[in-house]
Amino acid sequence: MPQHSPSLAAVGITLDPAPGVAISRHLYERIRDAILSGQLRPGLRLPSSRALAAELGVSRTTTVTAYERLRDEGYLDGRVGAGTTVALLQIPHPAAAPVHEPPRVRQPRLSAQGAALAGVRWRMRHTMDGPGSGPPAFPVGRPAIDAFPAELWGKVVARRARRSAGSLLRYQHPAGYQPLREAIAAYVGMARAVRCAPEQVLVVGGAQAGLSLAARLLLDPGDDAWMEDPGYYGARGAIIAAGATPVPVPVDTDGLDIDAGKARAPHARIAYVTPSHQFPLGVTMSLPRRLALLDWARTAGSYVVEDDYDSEYRYVGDPLPSLQGLDGAGRVVYVGSFSKVLFPALRIGYLIVPDELVDAFTAGQRFAAAHVPALEQAALTDFIADGHFARHVRRMRALYAGRGAALVQAARQELDGLLSVTPAHAGMHVIGWLPQDRDDRAAARQAAAYDVDVQSLSAHAQEPAERPALLLGHAATPEPYIVPAVHRLAASLTASAQSARGRRAELGGDGGYGEDL
Amino acid sequence: MPQHSPSLAAVGITLDPAPGVAISRHLYERIRDAILSGQLRPGLRLPSSRALAAELGVSRTTTVTAYERLRDEGYLDGRVGAGTTVALLQIPHPAAAPVHEPPRVRQPRLSAQGAALAGVRWRMRHTMDGPGSGPPAFPVGRPAIDAFPAELWGKVVARRARRSAGSLLRYQHPAGYQPLREAIAAYVGMARAVRCAPEQVLVVGGAQAGLSLAARLLLDPGDDAWMEDPGYYGARGAIIAAGATPVPVPVDTDGLDIDAGKARAPHARIAYVTPSHQFPLGVTMSLPRRLALLDWARTAGSYVVEDDYDSEYRYVGDPLPSLQGLDGAGRVVYVGSFSKVLFPALRIGYLIVPDELVDAFTAGQRFAAAHVPALEQAALTDFIADGHFARHVRRMRALYAGRGAALVQAARQELDGLLSVTPAHAGMHVIGWLPQDRDDRAAARQAAAYDVDVQSLSAHAQEPAERPALLLGHAATPEPYIVPAVHRLAASLTASAQSARGRRAELGGDGGYGEDL
Repeated sequence: MPQHSPSLAAVGITLDPAPGVAISRHLYERIRDAILSGQLRPGLRLPSSRALAAELGVSRTTTVTAYERLRDEGYLDGRVGAGTTVALLQIPHPAAAPVHEPPRVRQPRLSAQGAALAGVRWRMRHTMDGPGSGPPAFPVGRPAIDAFPAELWGKVVARRARRSAGSLLRYQHPAGYQPLREAIAAYVGMARAVRCAPEQVLVVGGAQAGLSLAARLLLDPGDDAWMEDPGYYGARGAIIAAGATPVPVPVDTDGLDIDAGKARAPHARIAYVTPSHQFPLGVTMSLPRRLALLDWARTAGSYVVEDDYDSEYRYVGDPLPSLQGLDGAGRVVYVGSFSKVLFPALRIGYLIVPDELVDAFTAGQRFAAAHVPALEQAALTDFIADGHFARHVRRMRALYAGRGAALVQAARQELDGLLSVTPAHAGMHVIGWLPQDRDDRAAARQAAAYDVDVQSLSAHAQEPAERPALLLGHAATPEPYIVPAVHRLAASLTASAQSARGRRAELGGDGGYGEDL
Repeated sequence: MPQHSPSLAAVGITLDPAPGVAISRHLYERIRDAILSGQLRPGLRLPSSRALAAELGVSRTTTVTAYERLRDEGYLDGRVGAGTTVALLQIPHPAAAPVHEPPRVRQPRLSAQGAALAGVRWRMRHTMDGPGSGPPAFPVGRPAIDAFPAELWGKVVARRARRSAGSLLRYQHPAGYQPLREAIAAYVGMARAVRCAPEQVLVVGGAQAGLSLAARLLLDPGDDAWMEDPGYYGARGAIIAAGATPVPVPVDTDGLDIDAGKARAPHARIAYVTPSHQFPLGVTMSLPRRLALLDWARTAGSYVVEDDYDSEYRYVGDPLPSLQGLDGAGRVVYVGSFSKVLFPALRIGYLIVPDELVDAFTAGQRFAAAHVPALEQAALTDFIADGHFARHVRRMRALYAGRGAALVQAARQELDGLLSVTPAHAGMHVIGWLPQDRDDRAAARQAAAYDVDVQSLSAHAQEPAERPALLLGHAATPEPYIVPAVHRLAASLTASAQSARGRRAELGGDGGYGEDL
């Protein structure tokens, strides 16, 4: 005996399935959406599956399938054959109708940290240049990907990947793969006079991940942190993300001005420094400054975050040993990275922390950061153990020295009066000083229009830089491309010198940070 | 004409090089340490390199090398032949003597977040069991690593690794490899009725990294966060690490008790839920609760963090669509992971965030988290595109259903009166209820002594659990090992029932969290 119940058409539901969508699924979705939108009221009796099949001209299996799913998911009450009603749901609000409305973008409700991060201005560089865009000139912070032994790395990874059925698939210790921690401890001990046990080494997802973890574990919101000025914007971003205040401390020819730091923020909780080769100015922190910095940290109970980001590349003289090795009081958190030496997408770096911080940092890696995939860690361990890593560093040192010398020579010949380029004694970029009245941000933008990718010193400065300058990366640009690119740079500097006269104020201050350092 | 200067021996410096250490390096270190310790005072004149060579009976090259390095590093003043003096350094404190003293472990000075993390109790499990320790029974949250097609995965990775000379070595977008973001959006749309564009997908270093990022960007210190109780301790750790307070909200047979949450913390900024298959109880959140939760989030301006950690594994009936798909107001942050489906060490997960949060979360990935290595992302994209992923999920669904059924059957036969095991309709573990008077923590410890790895329900509860229970993972234990392990579990439960009588209070409350969920 048919029960008295409305047809679906009577309540405004008609079917209009998209091609390839099963009728039963479409029916399920239409009824569900009608319930959620309030079109079908809670308690309403629906036609029987048989009556509905007849109404729609579909098989009864189709209607039973849709009804069963709706019942399973809680939209309908009742059993087959015993009458079907819309469940007594509290439909919150017609706006709940979820289906066909794209969510509106509105003001997000973020934490202070989230809001600070959303406010950090930055841009993506170098990830979009596909195969067709030609060799780069002169990206800052980018290694010579063209010279990386990718085939060899692929073999090392592949060997590990094929053998990975065993322990490498399992959960790993959050502090890192133990053989890699041991290899890192041995390497930094030998190459950088860092003093540590493998237990003090934490493998992290790149230097930035290490800086972020250190900032979060050492800085409370509102705390001060000494930040080299000019300095690495990634460290500044990590400090801001922790809710702390990066206090700009000037850098001179001896490195960070410790006295200025003490005057500006005597109780800063950390000092971020690049003592081996200051980023971006390239100076080495003098021994008196190093001792004064460690003394301050000891007295203030603060930590020094030493970012040794490109210490592998020194072309003249020996590198100065690390600050960490000079510290007898456990005040230094040392940050290193393999991404600069091997290839950026590797995303493996390391922290070396004082004993007293090991537990907190390990818990931080466990609960508040990302482990590094075990496969990469094991492959890197092999790469180091087999001598490939040391060989690659030696090769790159020679290559970068050559590229740097070629860039400096070309600049001296072509950029006289436009840009005064410093010698490339270390690292992966050189500084080119502009005439005092030039706007370096405008010059960098103009260069980009000539397909030359340089960064302005001002983009790395918190307070106005004393002299306008450009940063020219020399590591990633093959020698044959250097002279033509310097020609383009000369043309851009000449053009921007002409066009920029008298409107410096208008152009200044875009504040954009470069990516990729 | 020899200058008047003390011999080094006269100021207490003698040489005693370790085997294999060059004399010049040893001499450098002894003098450096003597300067840093105050043994050699600033301004002191040292013997000439010639006189020192004679005094020590070494070549002049040795002493010149040591002196030059000390001069380069700033420890000595003067030029060769013109007299050498100790530089006028401000040696901070004799305690600065860095070299032979291991740093003392002292109270670290951490941020509130760091201190909170250092206080989270947890332990490492399952990473140490090497090849010799036999198959595991019954670890919670561990997939069947033995059934993972490691050889195939290795080939996919190796193919990508060999071809990686190109764009894969470069810096990647912090939100993830675009083809993988597209594959994830398609997958969750199809499998979980998640509604999103690829731009809303962020690839993160595992579900825990995603939870941590969400907690940091959405929670300020002191904020409340609803936390399922019992619930996933990793989410609790992420909330604590953000400085926020996890407010325990009870879970009943319909899932999270929304009314209890509103009563306890009406203004919580996030609610952490596992609606598809609550961890650890296994219940599915009912539709009325889902609607009520979304309504609360909309009204309170809060976010729901939906952790869909094991939705791939449902053995009876269809899975309920995601909460995210029911949300029309952009209040849900959806968390997924590949580590549970493929293998734990992969460490790739994803967040799907409302449009309004995309910018902040991308900046968070850039500055405050770790990118995921491009190689793994590309290999996973291939694995999905080639159909391996879907095939593996299907195989594991059948395998886990079989292992779960075998465990439940064995438990019914062997554990009568000791443990009442629920059917395994979904997921990777079952619940075994203990008699009301038993202490589940003590039972878990006793089981470990019988080589059975189970977790207590109490270890996952913030407030005392209503009934004592054990969690038994069935995914990682091959069927032939299930019956013997259930025998051992029966023996352990019998033993602990005897030994535990009357001393429950004494044993309770170790509070240790399990790893590996």
